[in-house]
Amino acid sequence: MQALGLMGNASAQGMERLTPTLGKGTHVVVLGAGIAGLVSAYELEQAGFQVTLLEARDRVGGRAWTVRDGDKIEMIGEDTQTAHFSDGIYFNAGPARIPSFHQGLIGYAKKFDVPLEVEINSSRSAYVMGADGSKIRMRTAINDMRGHIAELLAKAVNQGSLDQAMTAADKQKLMPFLKAYGDLGADYDFKGTERSGFGAAPGAGVQFSAPGSAMPIDQLLANQQLPMTLFEDNLYMQATMFEPVGGMDRIHAGFDRALRRPAIRGAEVTRIRHTGAGVEVVYRDKASDVVDTVKADYVICTIPFPVLAKIDTDFSGPMKKTIASVVYDCSNKVAFESPRFWEKEQIYGGISFVGAPTALVWYPSAGLHSERGMILGCYNSGPTAAEFCKRPIAEQIAVSRGVIDRLHPGHGADLTNALAINWSKVPYSLGPWPDWNAGSANGRQEGHIDTAAYRALQQPDGRVYFASAALSQTPGWQEGGIQSAQMQVMALARRVAAQAAVRPSERRRAA
Amino acid sequence: MQALGLMGNASAQGMERLTPTLGKGTHVVVLGAGIAGLVSAYELEQAGFQVTLLEARDRVGGRAWTVRDGDKIEMIGEDTQTAHFSDGIYFNAGPARIPSFHQGLIGYAKKFDVPLEVEINSSRSAYVMGADGSKIRMRTAINDMRGHIAELLAKAVNQGSLDQAMTAADKQKLMPFLKAYGDLGADYDFKGTERSGFGAAPGAGVQFSAPGSAMPIDQLLANQQLPMTLFEDNLYMQATMFEPVGGMDRIHAGFDRALRRPAIRGAEVTRIRHTGAGVEVVYRDKASDVVDTVKADYVICTIPFPVLAKIDTDFSGPMKKTIASVVYDCSNKVAFESPRFWEKEQIYGGISFVGAPTALVWYPSAGLHSERGMILGCYNSGPTAAEFCKRPIAEQIAVSRGVIDRLHPGHGADLTNALAINWSKVPYSLGPWPDWNAGSANGRQEGHIDTAAYRALQQPDGRVYFASAALSQTPGWQEGGIQSAQMQVMALARRVAAQAAVRPSERRRAA
Repeated sequence: MQALGLMGNASAQGMERLTPTLGKGTHVVVLGAGIAGLVSAYELEQAGFQVTLLEARDRVGGRAWTVRDGDKIEMIGEDTQTAHFSDGIYFNAGPARIPSFHQGLIGYAKKFDVPLEVEINSSRSAYVMGADGSKIRMRTAINDMRGHIAELLAKAVNQGSLDQAMTAADKQKLMPFLKAYGDLGADYDFKGTERSGFGAAPGAGVQFSAPGSAMPIDQLLANQQLPMTLFEDNLYMQATMFEPVGGMDRIHAGFDRALRRPAIRGAEVTRIRHTGAGVEVVYRDKASDVVDTVKADYVICTIPFPVLAKIDTDFSGPMKKTIASVVYDCSNKVAFESPRFWEKEQIYGGISFVGAPTALVWYPSAGLHSERGMILGCYNSGPTAAEFCKRPIAEQIAVSRGVIDRLHPGHGADLTNALAINWSKVPYSLGPWPDWNAGSANGRQEGHIDTAAYRALQQPDGRVYFASAALSQTPGWQEGGIQSAQMQVMALARRVAAQAAVRPSERRRAA
Repeated sequence: MQALGLMGNASAQGMERLTPTLGKGTHVVVLGAGIAGLVSAYELEQAGFQVTLLEARDRVGGRAWTVRDGDKIEMIGEDTQTAHFSDGIYFNAGPARIPSFHQGLIGYAKKFDVPLEVEINSSRSAYVMGADGSKIRMRTAINDMRGHIAELLAKAVNQGSLDQAMTAADKQKLMPFLKAYGDLGADYDFKGTERSGFGAAPGAGVQFSAPGSAMPIDQLLANQQLPMTLFEDNLYMQATMFEPVGGMDRIHAGFDRALRRPAIRGAEVTRIRHTGAGVEVVYRDKASDVVDTVKADYVICTIPFPVLAKIDTDFSGPMKKTIASVVYDCSNKVAFESPRFWEKEQIYGGISFVGAPTALVWYPSAGLHSERGMILGCYNSGPTAAEFCKRPIAEQIAVSRGVIDRLHPGHGADLTNALAINWSKVPYSLGPWPDWNAGSANGRQEGHIDTAAYRALQQPDGRVYFASAALSQTPGWQEGGIQSAQMQVMALARRVAAQAAVRPSERRRAA
């Protein structure tokens, strides 16, 4: 590694540190200033490369889009929506949370002094709501169901039904644990638990608390959203989670500030060509309509594949075919501003699960205890989202409002300043992430990523490298974009280092 | 109620609003400026009473004591400890968290514009550590144990062992739920789950993630702290929880700022006497040694009973006996300042459970991602605490450091600026809360509060009312102090209102 100019010293972000002079004399054009493009540009600059970062939008961040008062949501085939938010209210239209183990993103936030606050991904006061509108507080759904499960298992163990499955020693240790697990009575019976809430709340004097009664198991199991009680133990959703104070895009603004040459905004790439010794990228400056050409040694392209497929390139035939074959998923969010009626129900952050088509009601972690906040009335993806975004925007909003009103009766009317985003219609994105199995016999297999197209795009086409969360194992997370960018920067660095070692003179002449 | 001058309009804080002129002409002395005294004084002032609030310490807040750089911890029989903390570091030596349903305290914090931040009471990255020092990440302990439980129960259900205990319909619904519950395989077998962490973490390119293997059930059950995985579902410990930004005492400072006549500090009460038409309270101004007397119509006394027992009063014989009979519990905390080594293990807030004698390691929620923080190496109460606080302070600190070092090898040496607090030795407190069953045949029965002494102290002695978290169902929580204070203020208000209605002229003459 050191022979290649790479120092083996892995940083906290998982990026191997490059020697700061490695890129001297080498110019790289990075296409797209989403997280993958920003990481590519930043890390290349740190390694001494000259970097030109081209971004078609008027802002950096890509899908990490924080919509604030006055911002416009333009979507293909839809009227422009304009955000009208009170002071301090914003809407993370793309990613909105960071798990503890996404140390790449957390590391960059620290590096750029972007303060993070806790994103409350789970509240015991939130609800699961069944298809019939019946709702159960999360604390009841979790703890009453656990009580029943512990009681049933204790019964089976006591009957000797599981004597084949476990040792006598384990059995002896399991029984007291089950009592603690389910908050069972002396006879391993479950009669209800204070964990699920008070029957009578404790007070001063002789106002004594009393536990409520247990919700019957059939009533719990009748709620189709009961499995969503496990959501908080999805590894990506586990406490502690974070969000940047003031909006997700604060991290991306931090990158841009840290760049010697910040992103060139409003630069729409129209053509990519290899030349004898480099690459030429043609772009249109949207504001002036002037067409410009950048010549460089290499390109790192982070443009989403459905967008890239429409750009004039000289990529190899198979590569063009591969790029054109990548189908992107759908994902939608609907946001409202509202007085914080949910906090009067003691819901501070967290998520209520409501089923299709809107999936959830997500309460804000920002501005707790203040007057107003942003509440999410829909966040769906996959086939449900593909259907949902066919509805008119007004209907998407009405449906989301209706679900919130069903969950919090009377409060649908509190919701104002609605915004809907359909990522498949957003220019320069055309979707949130790829569906690598679209059209396959098995249909959409979530998590199955290792396809021929996926593998092919890991390799450069000539002097053009591809980096994107789409080329990682976690295409729906910014960390994936960081990992892909770091990987491609390393690949490019190795190539440059190898050339410098083998034929320094030729390389200099060519550059 | 309205006839009594009370408006039936219950506020968010559960306090009925009193007419703002009810107390006109009536002077109340409130003894002690902990949460119960502050609430009493504030609510009485709001109702038009004249209030004199006497506090023996040089600060308000009582047990809600935020220790900052330069503060001194003086304890009976111990050398004074002085806090040496870096900028921004503080130690909540008493209460340190607020559950969502403690709307009284949250309401006052809002009223006094005291910002609250999330107190992270549970992190999936924290540990349970067994007596042999073996440790299991919370995510593994929770999710692997759930996997085994789901597998065992599915086995029993599939065998028909529980056909007597549940209907066929429930059984049919339970099975798919168990699959989701435990993340079981197709045959309801548990082979491990990504919820417990990755075997191989996902990355870019072809670095695919793989789940780890399941921890065997006997290994999980061998960890004595496994039941502490349920701690987060204790109703008082459930997400979302809060802490005031900058220290718990910010709320109490808010009360004091809101008082027309802030607390008189350094005023040690030495004598309480009923006179013909009122009460006389004698106190010593500790700074000047001047003895002063306050004459008033009523007293609300929030002085902890072991302290009150030593004050010269003319309470009735039975009342004096009752007060003297109240035994207080022990509780200790040991705090250190340290670089945030735990955040390098992706622990951001939350608690690791380590068993007796120190019980836990509690990571700070304040200042996440900053360089240094306050880590708690011990928080115990009950019999364990009674033994623990017999050790020399240096030993208490050494034991706590040792436990942290065992849990986080090598990091015991990072811990600096240690402080230990033993609440039973703190002047003007002499304990954290009462143990109403001390010396009873059953010994200490946690939660059993409804004793004769408890009931007797709910009633005033002449013109002296008693208010304290000790007189609530939740003596270890500030909310109990608020509830008790509000209740006693209401009792006093009813008495004053009744007198005003019945014989206004006599009352005025007396005052």
